[in-house]
Parts: sequence; C-alpha cells; structure tokens
Amino acid sequence: MKVAVIGGGAAGMSAASRIKALRPNWEVMVFEKSSFVSHAPCGIPFYIGGAVDEFEELCAYDVDYFRRERGIDVHTNSKVISVDDGSVTVEENGKESVYEWDRLLFATGSRAQRLNVDGENLDGVLYVDDIESAQRVKIDAIEAENVVIVGSGYIGVEMANAISRLGKKVTVIEVRERPLPEYDAEIAAIIKSEMEKFVDLRLSERVAAFDGQDCVERVITNKSEYRCDLAIVAVGVLPNTAIAEGFVDLGRSGAIKTNSRMETSRENVYAAGDCAESVNVVTGREDWIPLAAPANKMGYVAGVNMAGLELHYPGSLKSQLTGFKGLEIGKAGLSENEALREGYEVVSAFITSRTSARYLPGGLIHLKVVADRSGKLLGVQAAGNDVAMRIYAASALLYNGADVKDLFFTDFPYYPPISRVWDPLVVAARNLFRKLGIP
Amino acid sequence: MKVAVIGGGAAGMSAASRIKALRPNWEVMVFEKSSFVSHAPCGIPFYIGGAVDEFEELCAYDVDYFRRERGIDVHTNSKVISVDDGSVTVEENGKESVYEWDRLLFATGSRAQRLNVDGENLDGVLYVDDIESAQRVKIDAIEAENVVIVGSGYIGVEMANAISRLGKKVTVIEVRERPLPEYDAEIAAIIKSEMEKFVDLRLSERVAAFDGQDCVERVITNKSEYRCDLAIVAVGVLPNTAIAEGFVDLGRSGAIKTNSRMETSRENVYAAGDCAESVNVVTGREDWIPLAAPANKMGYVAGVNMAGLELHYPGSLKSQLTGFKGLEIGKAGLSENEALREGYEVVSAFITSRTSARYLPGGLIHLKVVADRSGKLLGVQAAGNDVAMRIYAASALLYNGADVKDLFFTDFPYYPPISRVWDPLVVAARNLFRKLGIP
Repeated sequence: MKVAVIGGGAAGMSAASRIKALRPNWEVMVFEKSSFVSHAPCGIPFYIGGAVDEFEELCAYDVDYFRRERGIDVHTNSKVISVDDGSVTVEENGKESVYEWDRLLFATGSRAQRLNVDGENLDGVLYVDDIESAQRVKIDAIEAENVVIVGSGYIGVEMANAISRLGKKVTVIEVRERPLPEYDAEIAAIIKSEMEKFVDLRLSERVAAFDGQDCVERVITNKSEYRCDLAIVAVGVLPNTAIAEGFVDLGRSGAIKTNSRMETSRENVYAAGDCAESVNVVTGREDWIPLAAPANKMGYVAGVNMAGLELHYPGSLKSQLTGFKGLEIGKAGLSENEALREGYEVVSAFITSRTSARYLPGGLIHLKVVADRSGKLLGVQAAGNDVAMRIYAASALLYNGADVKDLFFTDFPYYPPISRVWDPLVVAARNLFRKLGIP
Repeated sequence: MKVAVIGGGAAGMSAASRIKALRPNWEVMVFEKSSFVSHAPCGIPFYIGGAVDEFEELCAYDVDYFRRERGIDVHTNSKVISVDDGSVTVEENGKESVYEWDRLLFATGSRAQRLNVDGENLDGVLYVDDIESAQRVKIDAIEAENVVIVGSGYIGVEMANAISRLGKKVTVIEVRERPLPEYDAEIAAIIKSEMEKFVDLRLSERVAAFDGQDCVERVITNKSEYRCDLAIVAVGVLPNTAIAEGFVDLGRSGAIKTNSRMETSRENVYAAGDCAESVNVVTGREDWIPLAAPANKMGYVAGVNMAGLELHYPGSLKSQLTGFKGLEIGKAGLSENEALREGYEVVSAFITSRTSARYLPGGLIHLKVVADRSGKLLGVQAAGNDVAMRIYAASALLYNGADVKDLFFTDFPYYPPISRVWDPLVVAARNLFRKLGIP
C-alpha cells in the first residue's frame, strides 16, 4: 500500500509515524513545502524573544530521523500542486513529479489571515505565516526600534511578550475592545492591565494602511498613526484548503469536513490538523480548532484508521494556555460570550482567589466558570498564577461532560504551598450552586 | 431547632457555617476541646519549619469571627464527655453542663496512632496529635541537635522536610521498605533518592524502644540505635470515635458509618470529616479518607442535610499532594499495589518526561498511571516538577470514571514553557494503549 501525506507538520508526521508503526511494510510519503518537518510553530515567540537561540531547535526531529528511524519517505521543499484520484503532482527540485497513492492525508495546516490594506507588501510588514518566516521576524526585530503588532490573539500577545523582552518599544493594535477577544471581559481586564505595563495597547482601533518608502515607516489606523520599522500582522488564521477544495468537501467552518475517523467525503482520503474540521466536545457541533495538541491527536487517529484499524477522535475543547510576563492565561471550553452565541442559557461565576494557603506566600488567580441552566459546565477561563493546573482540571471535567456538582465534588488534592483546601475551582462551583438553587 | 457539633475543625466548622447560612434562626453549638477552631493541621510542618512564624496564623478564622459573623455558639476548651439521645454532657471551665440537641454532628477528627513501645512517655517523644502539640514540637525542635522521626507517611515526610530546614540532623525510621508506602516502588524510589540527600533514611527498620534518663536520648530499633534529643512519632492516624462508639455504628474501617447524606445509623445524628467513613470513588467501596479537603466537603454536605435540605457526598479519591525539598509528590486514586489488593487485574505505565517543550528550560516528572484490564483508570502517582497540574487533571478524570482513551483524548492545553504538546499523561495513556491492544 502507498500512502501520501501532504504537509510535514504535527498532524502529518504524527499520522505518518503511526502508519509506519502499524504497517512497517507500507510505503509512506510525506510532501512538505518547507525544508523542515515536525516543526513547532508554538515555539516561534520563544525563538524571537531569545529564549531559544537556534531556529533548528524548534524542530522536534530532523528529516533524517524520520527517514532513518521511522522509515518515512520525507520529501522536503516539495509543494503539492494538484491532487487527483490516486495521485498527486508535486513540484520539487524545480520539476514536477507524479506520485501514486492508495490512501491520502491532507495535513496542510493553516495560514495567516491577510489584512488587505494598502502598503501590506512593504518591506518590514511581516506575517508569522510559517516556521521559516520566524527567522525573518527575528532578524528584523533585533534591528528595529519601534515594532507594531497588529492583532492581540494568542500569536499577537506572545509576539508582544517576546519583542518587548528584546527591549523594543511595542505597540499592539487590536480592532476589538479587548486583548485575547476569546476571553470574557473580566479575564481580559486582568490581561489588559498587565499588558499595559509593558506595551502601548490600542484597543477598538482598525489598521487602515501601512505607509513608508521602501520599508514600512508608519501604521495608519482609523484613529491615529504609529511610527514603526517593523509591523507584525497576527489577525488570525485560516485553514489551508486551497489544494483540497473541489476534491473533498469543506465544512461549515471552511476547513475540510471529517468524521471521527478523520475521513473526508472521499473514500481513502483523510484530513487532520489545522486544515481539518472536527467537533467541539462542549457543544457537540462541528468546529475548527487549529491548535497543536489536537493536531497531533488528529494525526494519530488518522494514522490508525489509514492503517486499516479503528480509532475515533472525539473532538477538542479548544483548551489553551498562554502567558504574558508574570501572567499565566488559560481557557478550556466556551467563554460566556461564546456560550450565549451558541444559544445556551448561561450562569457564570467570576472569582479572585489566592493560590496557596493563607499563611504561606503565594499568588492570585482570577477565574471564571461558565455553566448552563441545567448545571452543565461549558467553560473555564483564568489569568494569574497557577492557571495551568486549573485549566488541566477543567479540561478533564469538560471532556467528561461534568456539571457544577462534579466541579465541586472532584477531590482536588491540597498541599498548603501550592493549593487551597477550598480550591478556587471549588469556590467558583459553590458560587454557581447559589445561582442554580443547589443548597 | 438546636444543633450540636462535636469538634471545631474543618468538618465541624464547615457544617456549622452551612447550617447557619441556610437556617439563620437555628441554634448551632460547637464544642471544641482545644482553644482553637477551624485550625489547619496541614500547616503544622510550615509552622515548625519556620515558613509560618505565629501559631495563630494557622487558624483560618478566630473564634470571635464565628460567633460574631456567623452566629455560631462556639464553646472552646469544651470536652464532650458523653452523648445521649437528645443531649450531650460537656466539661467546660472545670464543670459539667448538659446541652440538648435536635440534630447532632460528630466531627471529632482523627488521632495519632501510638507505637506502644517502652520509653514512649519520656520527655522529648512527641506525637503531632493536634494543633496544640505543634507548639511543643517547634520549641523542642529549635533546641534539638539530633531529631529522629518515626514514620515516613505524609506527616513524617513533611516533618523531615521542615526540621532539616532548621539545620538539624534528621533521621527518619520507616518500618516498611520505602518512604510514602502508599506509593508504588517506582515513584517511591524517586522520593527516597531525594530524601537521602538531606536526611538519614532508615527503611525496613522497626522502633523497639525509646531510652533516656528523663528526656529521650536514644531510639532503639531492631537493627541499630540512634542518638537523639527529640523523637517525633508519625506512624499513622486513627479515627477519633471514642465518644461515638456504642451510640452509632462504626464501619469496616473503624470510622463512623455514614451514608451519602452523612447520616449515621441513628436518626438525626451525622458524622463528617476524619472521624467518618465515606466512599472511595474509584472502588465504589467504603473507605476511610482522613484528609482536609474531603473533610471540608463532608462538613458542607452534612450541614446542608442537617438543615433539612438534600445534598449527597459522592466520596473521595484520596487525592494527595505533598513535597520534599525540590520534589512535588502527588497521587489520586489507587497505586498498583492498592489496586491488586482490591482485586483488580492491573496494567500500568511508568514514564519519565520533561515538563516543558524540549527547546525551553524545564524540569522532569516521573509519572505512573494504573488502569484495569478494561481500560478504566484506577490511579495516577507522580513525583518531580509540575506534579500538581497532573494530579488535578487525574482527579477530575478519576472522579468521572474515565478510561485510558479519555486520558489520551482529554484536550490538555499546550504552552511551551509549562507543558508539552504530548503531555506526560497522554504519553502514559499511549503506553497503556499498547498494553490494552488499543491501536
């Protein structure tokens, strides 16, 4: 059997590795348009901020490892230019080749959303589009004095964190009224106040154009203008589906429609990772969740099924963790706004709590828990200290369809230096008890 | 209505507070034999080790707070000497008084298990029996040069940590073959190796006697003897049921038998906290779980039911977290040994993993996951860095009856400085997949 995988990122390499582990005699080809595989785009801000020196460190394993140790036929600098039933046409080393397949995986990832404004093509206006663009951003950031970051989603916030660490003057421009707009206002207020200590944060402001001679010199918005010698645009991502369109069905979200075996609408054709639609475990509905951990698991599941065995991907919670300076920030499931948009009747609790016993030094956590009127948990968000452990726990609860009583009664362990006898999650649950009429 | 609560610790004050919140007009009396209520025995090691200066800081709220703010009739230095149907006899201020009740709660806690060896009553042989004994231990520990700690359960390990912090020479004597005997050998080996850097750890050794003139000078074991000027005995705890015996039924464990409303065998009589038996959520069987967080929740549930409303306590996972020097240590559910003893057919995975992305600085975690042959999760143990977040997540999964697939597919968030794209929990699940025939 011949397997072709388009894209050598997390999902692609995870699937390819799984297939070779289960079917050592099958031929597994991976076509990757860059010169790196198994790259870790989540590490880019740490490379740019200087915590990681060498770009190559971001790649989990090099190409040789996959070829030698896992027997995968990895083609780098190989761009798939068309997909047909049973074959792909690939541009590599300046020429086109056709490869046949019995099973095909789309693992083409996501791409940066464009702003579509004047001056976008000036030098010094950069998108963090792929792993290789990171090198360009780092070189330019070291030279720059004034850096404007457009967008304050995860990538924008992490870029702002990294570049302000380099001692640059950073301006962040966000079109919505708060940073990390996927969070509710209470949590966003904490994030805003931390960001404002280090960067010039401009909210509810829309970029109208970039201006300059050859290189960008100014970012012009609907309210003002900002001098800069580097502008980084991070206004969201889109699924990379160009090559798949017309060959397999896309879903509501615009990503490739899949079932729980990661099968597309066409037999023997699979999709996994940022290019694939999956299910939001909380809502039970199709959702597009372009994140690294789900991409790896989708790849794993695709690999198992492509190898002729059976495993079902249950979907994801959109669990996320990030940070800005001293603040850990995390979310699993839905915000209150997202829940309302999905049509839930919502109750929520927002609390601020210490993270250690009263008599020991410790930090603060700001935590919001969202549930529906029946008590079913819909989401948890937090900012402050020791956020990861609460979002980990929340992820486990949400994944299992837990309700507010489960949140209250889950037996979280207590150790005075690092937790509370009434954990902040439990305090929030108790708070929701009152709103839900639980005694 | 008149409510009497015997014991002003976590469970007693939690119940009393809940009743007054729901039934402000009821009379709620608490009888506490010490002069403190709502005391935090989990904080004792931090007081002894010097992280907490003043003993009083360990009490969450003082007696006045409960009287004034919550309207609870708190009697301190009040020892209940007998319990009858509808009344209790209390020794306070040197005289006996009788108080009537319509509803009664036993919240009498636990007591230190005695060694029953010669010399046990010498000066300088101390049990950390209650909150007040902590003061004596601290005074003696500051004076001492050589301290022997008998027992290496949680209390023994935390005491060893605290007293070695004071710069004393510490010897720990444990009768079993490893420290923290509730953990399996793989995790215990990590703990042992950390402990041996700081204390003289003597395993598989039984204390035969204490010896000395007025004050202890030597601890004599079946293998050797150890000079000391302070010996702390922490060989386990027992439920404090003396006053309840004969009045209500005890369970298999020796603690007071309760149902999920915390009702005892006698109408209108409840029990909560360390004196009460509850349910182990993993096995579904009666278990005695004397820990602070469950005690608070049992008290809460008892309070709701005593107030005439309804709430059910589902039981606990025995989730625990502790530490020794740089090592976080935690466990939820059963160890492999415990699972075998409970009659499960067991599979397990033990892994060592970094706790951050490969390209960023970070620590190591040693993690063991135990499941039964059907894939149902039975327990998680860990030692190393960032243990709390994994034990929090494990607690949520175990509470919800999750299986190994749920552990694999739970969408744990990834942020390179503090987690892994394949979390150690997920790696352990994948490892168990192989043993369970999941592809």
